[in-house]
Amino acid sequence: MQLLKDRIMKDGIVKDGDILKVDSFLNHQMDIPLIEEIGREFKRRFEGEEVTKILTIEASGIGIACITAQSFHVPVVFAKKSKTKNIAGEVYTTKVESFTHGITYDVIVSKDFLKPEDKVLLIDDFLANGKSLIGLTDIVKQAGATLVGAGIVIEKGFQEGGKYLRDVMGVRVESLAIVESMSVEGGVVFRD
Amino acid sequence: MQLLKDRIMKDGIVKDGDILKVDSFLNHQMDIPLIEEIGREFKRRFEGEEVTKILTIEASGIGIACITAQSFHVPVVFAKKSKTKNIAGEVYTTKVESFTHGITYDVIVSKDFLKPEDKVLLIDDFLANGKSLIGLTDIVKQAGATLVGAGIVIEKGFQEGGKYLRDVMGVRVESLAIVESMSVEGGVVFRD
Repeated sequence: MQLLKDRIMKDGIVKDGDILKVDSFLNHQMDIPLIEEIGREFKRRFEGEEVTKILTIEASGIGIACITAQSFHVPVVFAKKSKTKNIAGEVYTTKVESFTHGITYDVIVSKDFLKPEDKVLLIDDFLANGKSLIGLTDIVKQAGATLVGAGIVIEKGFQEGGKYLRDVMGVRVESLAIVESMSVEGGVVFRD
Repeated sequence: MQLLKDRIMKDGIVKDGDILKVDSFLNHQMDIPLIEEIGREFKRRFEGEEVTKILTIEASGIGIACITAQSFHVPVVFAKKSKTKNIAGEVYTTKVESFTHGITYDVIVSKDFLKPEDKVLLIDDFLANGKSLIGLTDIVKQAGATLVGAGIVIEKGFQEGGKYLRDVMGVRVESLAIVESMSVEGGVVFRD
């Protein structure tokens, strides 16, 4: 998606430790018209696919998921990073290791909101090592629902998540910008 | 807002401990057409007011803020609950005590995204004891920006937050549904 790549080139900041800061338009301050274009692009990528629910994970996926849902005309469900013990039986639970924060979360979704008949599109802002997205696919599996695919705004193509999800897990992953490499000195290079 | 009150009566669940669960349509699963109506209602309530930024706090405010921002044609900034120490000088920081989780968060906003010339509308899903909203007003003050007011989806009118914000702090708070009282047996009673 050229509009997105142009914006990353213009406003993205590469920091040491493979960090790509896009917090001026995507995940701290949010440029709503850009995210509307992102939502429409996800709809084009998954045109013809039946989707009944969009599933994302708090926090930075939520806004993108909500605006994408306007193109798909379906509800959003966001998985919660649990801080409290939950009663077994009421929720699907999976564990997600956070690279950024160095801890493992319990991630939960109420069983009321994902059913075997659901056809689920996953949406998230970033795909890097894939831990969040793998956790969400696990929740879809626990629900017995159908996984349609995953729509990702920015994929760090030099990390293993995208390859693992596509090649090993067989998930259709549509990333709107895939970073092939990046460095503080050289900036961002996109795949293709 | 009658549509919202009707939905709370239909799908809201009152639990012990003054908990109103609206997670089937507002803060776990999200009914996007309803939230579009909520966004338009916030625009009507603040008609004629100049707003340059919408400020909310992760996680459940983000989706509502993004869709509301479509009516105001402004960016969203969401305050982050910090898990890591941040370099002083780069961020505005305030402390917010969470009733639900029994802990105090550091809440941060990058100084890049709130400036003295900004006219800020706060958006959140719930107002109860007001701690989150008071934290956000503190951040607006640190930025030297103008606080236009706060748009709240559901206010627990029997808790002190709304009264304190309006009467002591002088904030214009527009709540789309104000719960006067609620109980497991009797359900929800709205103000007015």
